[in-house]
Amino acid sequence: MTAPARPTLAPVSTRVNEAQTPSSPHVTFAADTPLKLDCGQVLAPFTVAYQTYGTLNADKSNAILVCHALTGDQHVANVHPVTGKPGWWETMVGPGKPIDIDKYFVICPNIIGGCMGSTGPASVNPATGKPYGLDFPVITIGDMVAAQVRLIDHLGIDTLFSVVGGSMGGMQVLEWVARQSQRVYSAVPIATAARHSAQNIAFHEVGRQAVMADPDWCQGDYLNLDKVPRRGLSVARMAAHITYLSEDALQDKFGRNLQDRDRRTFSFDADFQVESYLRYQGSTFVDRFDANSYLYITRAMDYFDLAAEHGDVLANAFRGTKTRFCVVSFTSDWLYPTRESKAIVRALNAVAANVSFVEIESDKGHDAFLLNEPELFATVGGFLGAAAERRGLKVRGS
Amino acid sequence: MTAPARPTLAPVSTRVNEAQTPSSPHVTFAADTPLKLDCGQVLAPFTVAYQTYGTLNADKSNAILVCHALTGDQHVANVHPVTGKPGWWETMVGPGKPIDIDKYFVICPNIIGGCMGSTGPASVNPATGKPYGLDFPVITIGDMVAAQVRLIDHLGIDTLFSVVGGSMGGMQVLEWVARQSQRVYSAVPIATAARHSAQNIAFHEVGRQAVMADPDWCQGDYLNLDKVPRRGLSVARMAAHITYLSEDALQDKFGRNLQDRDRRTFSFDADFQVESYLRYQGSTFVDRFDANSYLYITRAMDYFDLAAEHGDVLANAFRGTKTRFCVVSFTSDWLYPTRESKAIVRALNAVAANVSFVEIESDKGHDAFLLNEPELFATVGGFLGAAAERRGLKVRGS
Repeated sequence: MTAPARPTLAPVSTRVNEAQTPSSPHVTFAADTPLKLDCGQVLAPFTVAYQTYGTLNADKSNAILVCHALTGDQHVANVHPVTGKPGWWETMVGPGKPIDIDKYFVICPNIIGGCMGSTGPASVNPATGKPYGLDFPVITIGDMVAAQVRLIDHLGIDTLFSVVGGSMGGMQVLEWVARQSQRVYSAVPIATAARHSAQNIAFHEVGRQAVMADPDWCQGDYLNLDKVPRRGLSVARMAAHITYLSEDALQDKFGRNLQDRDRRTFSFDADFQVESYLRYQGSTFVDRFDANSYLYITRAMDYFDLAAEHGDVLANAFRGTKTRFCVVSFTSDWLYPTRESKAIVRALNAVAANVSFVEIESDKGHDAFLLNEPELFATVGGFLGAAAERRGLKVRGS
Repeated sequence: MTAPARPTLAPVSTRVNEAQTPSSPHVTFAADTPLKLDCGQVLAPFTVAYQTYGTLNADKSNAILVCHALTGDQHVANVHPVTGKPGWWETMVGPGKPIDIDKYFVICPNIIGGCMGSTGPASVNPATGKPYGLDFPVITIGDMVAAQVRLIDHLGIDTLFSVVGGSMGGMQVLEWVARQSQRVYSAVPIATAARHSAQNIAFHEVGRQAVMADPDWCQGDYLNLDKVPRRGLSVARMAAHITYLSEDALQDKFGRNLQDRDRRTFSFDADFQVESYLRYQGSTFVDRFDANSYLYITRAMDYFDLAAEHGDVLANAFRGTKTRFCVVSFTSDWLYPTRESKAIVRALNAVAANVSFVEIESDKGHDAFLLNEPELFATVGGFLGAAAERRGLKVRGS
């Protein structure tokens, strides 16, 4: 496997335009209905950009909320407006797919703090008329969910049939249940954790320091100065990307294979395919993602600790829940290893919640949740199908 | 555990002085006795700086060569001339220690490519009168060993009683046996591998890109321009440092503990102890290490593939060896995990070499080889003692 040639990408202005005037549906909540944040500040006005797929049924009982991960966005199953690439979860969401848009109405909001149209550090601060930059308040996973609750209210949906997400998306799933259990019929947290470990925080801190070390970051003010902290954000992405793959996956994909050459060059060129691949991952990421968003979102993940929000007892977060859970982990995921999922399952068992747990054998590492994993598809599709039957879900053709 | 206050450190000039005119013993090999490098170039003249401990016995049979790791140097068991800190392996090397300098004569050379007096990119290039920078040739682990062979010749030692090293030091141990088996009575490769994996290369590439992304790196010419790529090298060190510790060690040491505060600050300050610790590791590293050395040494490690040098059969590297081996790994080392040591042991077994293998139970990760690990001390001390007896080593008091 070799890294593909660098594609012709949309210019930075396209990305900034998507951040400020998204091409996808969006709703702006006015200044008189502010979002109260965990930090004590308010966000007002604020916008939530989102995509939907499929059709909401008559009794509005077939809505599935998909929560995206750190560098994801609302473009789950459509061509991405900046990269021109397919949606990030087309393996999972679509007609006849495990999250079947012939049966379910799928909603995916861009998180606040993101950079695809929901209010974030690249959005225009109404107080100054310029991008927020570091004036954007530090947000939490709970704040992201609070904004999503407002969107679901706006869409007139009382109870979500399911909330589904992997990685940071899974954290939002857990936070949804902790905050709004009565509005969540079922929940599918995948490859996630109820709190960030020291190692998770450490890797994020490396990424943030890499961004902040780039002089073009300009103390967060780069958009106003027409700069892009390309090198710092690229290094941050490279470091993070290693954590998304298992060692076996890296070894199988790349091993010590050389990139387009027969022998070592005795230089600092990307002699090895794995170097070329990482450089490519770093450089294309910069074209589609905002550096400050990266800082804010990683911070929110590091701050996430669901037990700490509930008297240091994780089970308290789920006490009294009637939600049906399907918790999924992958054997080779060392970023959010199976033991983190088991901690969630133990807490759910401690409050007699309805929970099934599947550890999927995979050598793909954390990224397995985004890849072609038939057992994942069977697990999610089967769980949702059974839950739909149990709920007597009325969908087209049933 | 909290990160200590940042100590008062020697100025950069002290470090550069040590690189160019080391305070430790050193030998310069003249221009007419060049070091032929694997890249095809020669290094001439070149200097090897080193430290010794203990006394060489009459028949010169009690010499132990200690090979240092990526960021180590010759200052094994004396106060460091730049940092003022104790030597990096005082737990292992000293009077009455496992490598007992009352019995053995210990030699530790700074590797070529390093920055404590052996010729490296911070050394003055005789052709220009200025520091080499990127004019320094790309070196290999084999080149480091070739320079050490010259030092051992210079010291008039025919056969080393043992060659001992951890991590990259272990790679040098393996290369010594592959090149000069008849001169190595015993060998102790610890927490190492016979080749760099894709994940190993990936982490190093992140570090190199972080350094090179720093504008103060100046295409490697920073010493001539009176700059230091502090931020880039610091980020590189932070990323690497995570790989030296196990997840359990990070969790036990730091968990989610906050640093000198009661609550999250909702900012990008180092709220968490693990962030503060990593920042400290990064910033102090810059004070003692040369950024270009970091590039060259990581490159040498990535290039290391002992099997590839021997017809893709690792056992060929050891064919006919009479050296006695003690291979050591640690259970929680995910940088050079036990399976890498087992690959070495299998290759040694395939040529009927004399090898013992110990996997030490430890939660400290890769860094265990530098830390207080009684089983490591017992293993190394016991192995050397038995080998000394077998060899009939004449030492003081025996």
